[in-house]
Amino acid sequence: MRFYFLTLFPEIFEIYFQTGMIGRGVKAGLIDYTVINIREFSGNKHHKVDDTPYGGGAGMVMAAPPIVAALKSIADLGTYPVIYLTPGGKPFEQKDGLKLSEYPGIIFICGHYEGIDQRVIDAYVDLEFSVGDYVLTGGELPALTLADAIARHIPGFLGNSDSLAEESFESHLLEYPQYTKPREFEGQEVPEVLLSGNHAAINKWRLLQAETRTRLKRPDLFEKYQKSLHNE
Amino acid sequence: MRFYFLTLFPEIFEIYFQTGMIGRGVKAGLIDYTVINIREFSGNKHHKVDDTPYGGGAGMVMAAPPIVAALKSIADLGTYPVIYLTPGGKPFEQKDGLKLSEYPGIIFICGHYEGIDQRVIDAYVDLEFSVGDYVLTGGELPALTLADAIARHIPGFLGNSDSLAEESFESHLLEYPQYTKPREFEGQEVPEVLLSGNHAAINKWRLLQAETRTRLKRPDLFEKYQKSLHNE
Repeated sequence: MRFYFLTLFPEIFEIYFQTGMIGRGVKAGLIDYTVINIREFSGNKHHKVDDTPYGGGAGMVMAAPPIVAALKSIADLGTYPVIYLTPGGKPFEQKDGLKLSEYPGIIFICGHYEGIDQRVIDAYVDLEFSVGDYVLTGGELPALTLADAIARHIPGFLGNSDSLAEESFESHLLEYPQYTKPREFEGQEVPEVLLSGNHAAINKWRLLQAETRTRLKRPDLFEKYQKSLHNE
Repeated sequence: MRFYFLTLFPEIFEIYFQTGMIGRGVKAGLIDYTVINIREFSGNKHHKVDDTPYGGGAGMVMAAPPIVAALKSIADLGTYPVIYLTPGGKPFEQKDGLKLSEYPGIIFICGHYEGIDQRVIDAYVDLEFSVGDYVLTGGELPALTLADAIARHIPGFLGNSDSLAEESFESHLLEYPQYTKPREFEGQEVPEVLLSGNHAAINKWRLLQAETRTRLKRPDLFEKYQKSLHNE
């Protein structure tokens, strides 16, 4: 899986692909990345890539020609989905990460300022995603966020000790609380049941904790969870 | 405003604070950051910071003592909110960014593996936030995402040409489409109304576009928008 990032800030990406589990995935040959500087496709000597919006209003809009020229620099452009990160996109969810992990490559367009010219979206973008209901300075963190969430689904990416199956969202439940050594820390003990060795009791306690948390903190998810129980 | 990041991957943060609008905010003295490597507080020569979960299960849990020692290395710890990034947290929204922008500092704990020992959360964490309903390899991108969303609300951070007021989510509407030069691109014209100079007509068209998009793509937001109209 190769991630392509079209960006005005190419320097942001390098370190993330050298670090942690994502870095391990690159070294293992499971993922790779190409960063394309949109500014190099400006077609003018001042490397200008934005202009004022037609119809007036605050801010600048990223112009279509440099973005489209950057897109066309990708060989086999047509075989990869083109994703634009925008607060106006579909809220990205865990299941989107799973679906997207099946492509050999994904192209992310990272917007800045007041966004990109709509004609790029109409003619070239396959999917618009939002990472959440908040506004950021640019699409770089959202693109890295999607790449990270997608990479975790690639077979072999997670080690044997990791697990996708028990995870949040796939069962519509938040995670139960976790404890590790020491057994006592600053006067707080590990819950007795976790030390019991009784696996049925442990599983029951964990499920109850996860259900209670989800009901209290995320009634929207809890509703999905209850529906999924009825459908089993 | 100073952002503190407690992390196992300190190298991720530096470049983001040197780049783009966030880098400009640092240079202008509006924001600053301190990255604290949790591993330096492991208290053992192998720098081990995690262990197996009590009660069994896949993965490793980040132990409490190194995280708490890292927290206690921050002078004036008690004056800053401590935020833990987790899929189980409250979904972060635009208005949370506004509220948090009023603090002189914010401490982010970035988890990895199966999360952190619950006793850290119970005794030290003020707020748990989720950036969205997906699972990532760690809390570093979510912490940067919150820092970015919060920084935008700091007075003076956005230039005069930028605008918070017209933005997505504050009015419960998605953004209207934007266009810039050239007027014709690959056979696609800019919508006629935007060239008319008739500002009333332009505003009407933009509102209709924003409403139509929101109704189609985000019925949940559109409901909030309709309620806000009735309350005016």
